[in-house]
Amino acid sequence: MAKAPVLTPRAVDFPRWYQDVIARAELAENGPVRGTMVIRPNGYAIWERMQAEIDARIKQAGAQNAYFPLFIPESYLRKEAEHVEGFSPELAVVTIGGGKELEEPIVVRPTSETIINSYFAKWIQSYRDLPLLINQWANVVRWELRPRLFLRTTEFLWQEGHTAHASEVDAHAYARRILTEVYRSVMVDVLAVPVELGVKTARERFAGATASWTCEGMMGDGKAVQMGTSHELGQNFAKAFGTTYSSETGAQEHVWQTSWGVSTRLVGALIMAHGDDNGLRLPPRLAPVQVVVVLIRDEADTRSVAERLLAELKGAGHRTLLDDRVDVSFGRRAVEWELRGVPLRLEVGPRDVADGQVTVVRRDDGSKRQVAIALAAAGAAATLEEIQGALLRQAQEFQDAHTVAVDSVDEAAEAAQSGFAVLPWSLVGPEGEDRLAASAVTVRCLQRPDGSLADSATEAGLIAICGRAY
Amino acid sequence: MAKAPVLTPRAVDFPRWYQDVIARAELAENGPVRGTMVIRPNGYAIWERMQAEIDARIKQAGAQNAYFPLFIPESYLRKEAEHVEGFSPELAVVTIGGGKELEEPIVVRPTSETIINSYFAKWIQSYRDLPLLINQWANVVRWELRPRLFLRTTEFLWQEGHTAHASEVDAHAYARRILTEVYRSVMVDVLAVPVELGVKTARERFAGATASWTCEGMMGDGKAVQMGTSHELGQNFAKAFGTTYSSETGAQEHVWQTSWGVSTRLVGALIMAHGDDNGLRLPPRLAPVQVVVVLIRDEADTRSVAERLLAELKGAGHRTLLDDRVDVSFGRRAVEWELRGVPLRLEVGPRDVADGQVTVVRRDDGSKRQVAIALAAAGAAATLEEIQGALLRQAQEFQDAHTVAVDSVDEAAEAAQSGFAVLPWSLVGPEGEDRLAASAVTVRCLQRPDGSLADSATEAGLIAICGRAY
Repeated sequence: MAKAPVLTPRAVDFPRWYQDVIARAELAENGPVRGTMVIRPNGYAIWERMQAEIDARIKQAGAQNAYFPLFIPESYLRKEAEHVEGFSPELAVVTIGGGKELEEPIVVRPTSETIINSYFAKWIQSYRDLPLLINQWANVVRWELRPRLFLRTTEFLWQEGHTAHASEVDAHAYARRILTEVYRSVMVDVLAVPVELGVKTARERFAGATASWTCEGMMGDGKAVQMGTSHELGQNFAKAFGTTYSSETGAQEHVWQTSWGVSTRLVGALIMAHGDDNGLRLPPRLAPVQVVVVLIRDEADTRSVAERLLAELKGAGHRTLLDDRVDVSFGRRAVEWELRGVPLRLEVGPRDVADGQVTVVRRDDGSKRQVAIALAAAGAAATLEEIQGALLRQAQEFQDAHTVAVDSVDEAAEAAQSGFAVLPWSLVGPEGEDRLAASAVTVRCLQRPDGSLADSATEAGLIAICGRAY
Repeated sequence: MAKAPVLTPRAVDFPRWYQDVIARAELAENGPVRGTMVIRPNGYAIWERMQAEIDARIKQAGAQNAYFPLFIPESYLRKEAEHVEGFSPELAVVTIGGGKELEEPIVVRPTSETIINSYFAKWIQSYRDLPLLINQWANVVRWELRPRLFLRTTEFLWQEGHTAHASEVDAHAYARRILTEVYRSVMVDVLAVPVELGVKTARERFAGATASWTCEGMMGDGKAVQMGTSHELGQNFAKAFGTTYSSETGAQEHVWQTSWGVSTRLVGALIMAHGDDNGLRLPPRLAPVQVVVVLIRDEADTRSVAERLLAELKGAGHRTLLDDRVDVSFGRRAVEWELRGVPLRLEVGPRDVADGQVTVVRRDDGSKRQVAIALAAAGAAATLEEIQGALLRQAQEFQDAHTVAVDSVDEAAEAAQSGFAVLPWSLVGPEGEDRLAASAVTVRCLQRPDGSLADSATEAGLIAICGRAY
């Protein structure tokens, strides 16, 4: 009789498989207030690793971390017309503080453009103060009617960058620099998720932006996840908040701004881009635990071999863990490490050790081989890099196989049910977007035909990448 | 004519000096909602360094990071009687979400014992699940009527640890372990602030705890700051939330719990413990910038010397920065680096360089000396360690000079106006605490006469350390 599957198979019910992975790998749970989320240690460790990789690149791009308040006076949001219209339906509002009804209601930040501009307006005096490049790691709240763990939660964790520049050209370049040097770099080089970069159509633009740039990843069911966005805000917020500077000629000018963010939804994307029917598959460069040394039985020399391997792996700079829970069955532990997606497993059992070897198991393809004890730790680095490359390659191949060029909006609406449909944007337009929406399809982004970043959504000759999205 | 001071002198008005330092060093500002705070990049960089030092020690102590929701149903808080009584007056309450009046009001977390227990109750089944050691980095909100930047803000950033144990002995040991191995270690070894460790009196205990342990530091005006606390919760929350486990004998038992936290108030304590009339003095092990290389004028070989020094310092692992803003006057830049408290300054000017040397300036004592270019970077490590030691020594000497042994509550009330007053706890008691309170003095903690940690507030022979507190 076949073993009952640990998870709902992906082919049977992908959303159910996603929920199963999160529950069984103990990544997260629903919070008591609708749409909120508890991130458990296994899930949070993944987010911490993402934070470290993103934060280093943000600092490399010259931005400094700061922290702005959670609470924003309601009046601030009303200062930018599109912005308040976009966010009003999603707000959580504090009306009681310190036991008293408040005179002015307070909004729990859905994003921080407004409160940050109120300070930029004070801090920026002269062109010498520009560019001002600020980032913050924070929680934000957007009331969510159809929550889904990690992907869409009422409260989520993110970083939000906010910058002010002396010219439109500078702001344009910086918004795009963050997209490529920070976001694409982390997504492709660390998360091993290929992403399509492009500009959003007017319909999909951030509320208050003049242009929104995006990284779109394809999940294991062919649907898209918007993994990170970077916006040019033009002078919209600068005019609403009076954020001006005196130029070299002494003239008062409004600053040009950007904002950009990625959130805990990246964890959801990571699960859905790489996971298989046995659970998570974490890319080694991201994995909180890269190698687990599993002590099968505690007898003869097994423990000393396991501990020596552990020390060698740590010495080589790998994030590693010893599983010596020999009172739990080996099979159960193997299932657990597969669920958690640890890229490499070194199994240390009495029979292998007697033969001077250990068993090395790759999580990505499940392959096993016997390796001499003396070589096992030293070989890990190369195998981990192979796994990293294999995951990216598989994801790219999957995306290629689920992307089709089409010639009409009707064809796009159908083809995008199982992947990306690509066609000239000139064949779609706002009217075509309405028709796609009837099939739950959206234009994920606009790109030049060679895949490079367009200068704006109005550039001639762009193609539209259409898909269903989480 | 004497130069106008950059800051209000400490001796003239200490609280005003504190505000001046925060403003002039650009550490923080008030937020628009009363009591909230904007942490500017210079201030946030200090907090990030604190986080890194604390987080590493928390992980060393076996706890794992996780994240629980900001929003807590109001009913959760009511489950533990003392807890709700303690926090009710300080709550911010969300009554509107997604445009609708909520059926049950939502509390913005003032601390997370209640919501965390509701999950511990699900996750903990057996003694094998214990101890469960969780930490989270988060923002919390406590409505503040007399806000003061960093020290007392409506929203603040902190870490809060929450653990569950199979026995009271284990919980007791872990709460104390965090106090000594995490908190005292960071405060003394990194922040260079000597702290008095002890147990809180019943009056000063955390709402819902059976015992509260504390680290109390002395500020530059003799007042105390409670820099970190660790609580034994007994089975109070376990009983309120039904957090039970089956023991090895199969009996259902309530878990024993702890919680512990430090917050952005540590930044305030750091400023007040070490600052002088020229600004911050940061201990080198904490300082975001340990060494600044100041290019005085960009001529002859000065730039190449400055850049070489920078590279050597970075190569040696020091956090360092090049100030090459030669269009800003040297004097103004020197004032700025003193305000920001950078421990060591290497000044590179044409005259020095012509003599094959640079000027090395220590922030802690203002001393300057000429050092051969070839030796300047290599000498930094030892000088930084000297500064670290000097700051701790000075703070300890200041505390010793402002601590007096007294024989009565009346004497304590008077002596504690300018420092710590120490007397047998048997001479004080709850009635004495009331009398001290009339002079704005509190018992900061109870200690054994040799300074070691008592087992409880009821242990015989304890001494009381009394002081005024921020």
